[in-house]
This record gives sequence, C-alpha cells and structure tokens, in this order.
Amino acid sequence: MAKGRLYGVGVGPGDPELLTLKALRLLRSCPVVAYQSAEDKTSIARSIVSEYLPGNQIEVLYHLPRALDPQAAQPIYDRVVTPIAEHLAAGRDVAVLCEGDPLFYGSFMYVFTRLSDQYETEIVPGVSCAMGCASALSVPLSYRDDIFTVLPATLPAEVLETQLSNTDAAAIIKLRRHFAKVRDVLQKLNMTSRAHYIERGTMATQKIIPLQQVDPEQVPYFAMILVPSQSKL
Amino acid sequence: MAKGRLYGVGVGPGDPELLTLKALRLLRSCPVVAYQSAEDKTSIARSIVSEYLPGNQIEVLYHLPRALDPQAAQPIYDRVVTPIAEHLAAGRDVAVLCEGDPLFYGSFMYVFTRLSDQYETEIVPGVSCAMGCASALSVPLSYRDDIFTVLPATLPAEVLETQLSNTDAAAIIKLRRHFAKVRDVLQKLNMTSRAHYIERGTMATQKIIPLQQVDPEQVPYFAMILVPSQSKL
Repeated sequence: MAKGRLYGVGVGPGDPELLTLKALRLLRSCPVVAYQSAEDKTSIARSIVSEYLPGNQIEVLYHLPRALDPQAAQPIYDRVVTPIAEHLAAGRDVAVLCEGDPLFYGSFMYVFTRLSDQYETEIVPGVSCAMGCASALSVPLSYRDDIFTVLPATLPAEVLETQLSNTDAAAIIKLRRHFAKVRDVLQKLNMTSRAHYIERGTMATQKIIPLQQVDPEQVPYFAMILVPSQSKL
Repeated sequence: MAKGRLYGVGVGPGDPELLTLKALRLLRSCPVVAYQSAEDKTSIARSIVSEYLPGNQIEVLYHLPRALDPQAAQPIYDRVVTPIAEHLAAGRDVAVLCEGDPLFYGSFMYVFTRLSDQYETEIVPGVSCAMGCASALSVPLSYRDDIFTVLPATLPAEVLETQLSNTDAAAIIKLRRHFAKVRDVLQKLNMTSRAHYIERGTMATQKIIPLQQVDPEQVPYFAMILVPSQSKL
C-alpha cells in the first residue's frame, strides 16, 4: 500500500481570508487534518480555517508541551507525532495546519523533523505573522539595502540590545512575560518612538496599543513589536 | 465625489496558487489594477495573477528605474505614481500588485510612501519570497529562540560577514551580480555546506542549484541563498 503524503500547511497570521488558494485546496481535500494547541487551549490554527472544513475529515489534535528541557522533551515529541505517522503509514494524506508559515518559527517543525525522511512531504508556505502585523499596522518594514532581523524576546537583554543596534528593522516575537525587558532595551536605545506593538494581528480580536500603555502582565503569546526601517524611499 | 481606495496587494512568491483569498477577491473586484516592471521586461506580479484577471479592468503599468541615485530619483518616482493617484482622485479603487509581501522589500513601498497619506490605504500581506523559497527547498528556516536575518547581497562583504556571524539563520536576497561576493563570504565563514541556492522559487521556472555549480554571471534578481538554522528540535 502506498504511504500517505505529509503536507505542512501554513494558514497565515489569523484572518481566514489570508489563507492561500493552495492551503484551502489541501485542507479541504486531505482525509486527515492535524493541528496543535496548548494543553488547555483550543487550536488557533484550526479556528482560523474552521469555516472552510467540509466536516467529513478525521481530525488529529496534538499538544506540544512548552518550556521543557529540549533534551528531556524528545521522547514526548516523538510520541506526539505518532498518530500523524499512523495515518500516513495507513496510506492517508495528512494536512498539518500551522499558524503563519510552517518553516518559519512554526509548530510544524516538530512534525517535519520527525517524519519528513519517512514520508513524502510538501510544504505550503503561509503569510508570516510578521508580515500580517506590518499590514495591520500599515507600517512599511524594510526596503532597498535594509537589514531585517527577527528577534525572539526570550533572548537576554544584552543580545537584544546588540542585535537591535546592528539592524535597520526588526520584528520582536514571543513577547509574553518578556515584554518589560524588551521595552527597557528599546528605551535604552532610544527606539521607543519607532516601535509598534500589536496583539493578535489580523485576527478579529486584534489590538494595537501604544507601547507605553501596554500592561506587561497582560501580553499574550501572539503579540509582536515591530521596529520599521527609517530608510527613505 | 468619494476618493478611491488604495490597496497594496501581495501576490506571493510566484506560484499563482500561493495567492491569498483576500488578494484574489480584491484583484478581481477593483476597477483598476496596477503593477510595475523593469523598463524592458513584462511585469512578474501581473504574470502571477494573469489567470485570475476578469479582463474588464483598467490596467496601469509603471516602471521604477533601478540603481539611480535615491535623491535624484525622487521626482521620477513622484511622476511614476501619478496615474495611480489620478484614478484614486477620480473615485476608482486601485489594486497595486506586488510580488511577495507589499511592506517587506516590496515595490509597493514607492507607491505607499507617496499616496497613503492622501488616500485610504489597505495592505493585503502576501507570502514572502523567503518563506516561498524555504518551502520549495523543504528547508526549515528558524525555530525557538533563533535569530533570523534578511541580508541584501548589495551590502559590503564585511557587513555580510559580521551579520552572518551573529545570526542563527539568514536569507540573502537581491543576489544578481553580487553572488560571487556572497559565496566568498560564506566560504570564509565555513557556511557553504549549510547554504541553499534557489532561483525563482515556487515559479514554474524554479531552479535549485548546488552553490558550487552556480554561474555567477547567470544569477537573476529573483535568486536567494538560504542559510537555515542548525538548532535541534
């Protein structure tokens, strides 16, 4: 029996209309649709595409435990992808949904690194959250000879400072409880007036808040700070 | 009379199926569609969406001269956007098409910076060429706490070297006649084996060539080198 095909499908930053035509075709035609969520949450990727699902598919929900020691987590991750592997082994194509783009800080990577050498794999790129947020803010990010850097807020303050000093434009992601640290670094570098804060960009629940008014205790995972280029066009 | 609305519409990296549903809706419903090309070339953005155009729209082609002194070019750029402004002033919505994403190294920026303060403007983000190329190569770009950097190949070799030494993953864009310089920097940094070269990623004419076999004289504008993360998942 032929094995199933693994699709990593980017569903974009949140607005269901930012799905690509290719993603729509595959998530409707695959017999199995898989998506992840935090242990106690519903899946954001699934909620983005829910209106498009025909309703007759097998759905696989998997959980990726967060903030674990990466070494210790390996057997857990291996176990997490097993249901997906079983469908592929049984000859069923599986569309694994992923917010944003699958290969760019995407949760799909945990599946990709474990199954792509055993099953034919195709990636459908998606609109990245950084581009979605720039559009929602109407803020041109970078042009011409600009250097653009994506910085996880989890990095130490010194690293963020050095990186921000050596780039023309930046997206700072994974803010959550690291917001205050990032805000302090931006202040130190005199970049506060250039920085834009946005929560859940392009989603129906999107919020744009002036940086100084953000409550550091209330920053969600899907929040981002954009520092656009100052180049002139 | 109400003014028209300006849409900056990302059409993605090349595969027409990587258009978003929102881009498709707008490029079909706007009475005017505008797109740019080099002086002697056809428009790539238009060729990506040609199968979707209903055929009854006004089309505006504009040329952005390349490699001009930015100061001297200002009046030229101002003149280039005039036909678009005239349609907007006459109350017609205009969809300006842009390869990849409009606010991320996009040609739309020249229009945006000149017209967005006079006309209501909405951006439709698109799949960036960097994500399109990563998917075409099936190469995971970055995850977890990785730093990701976009580097125009036009930068001096020393800058490229420093930046590549201080990031976890990179996309090197605008290669063309700068390819040999970039290849030398990668070699010096011992990064050659990690680097992936791709031309016209996701287009029908896509080519993936081992870095060592690339002819520096034949590198097109739509070529990219990806240096993916070495982090483990």
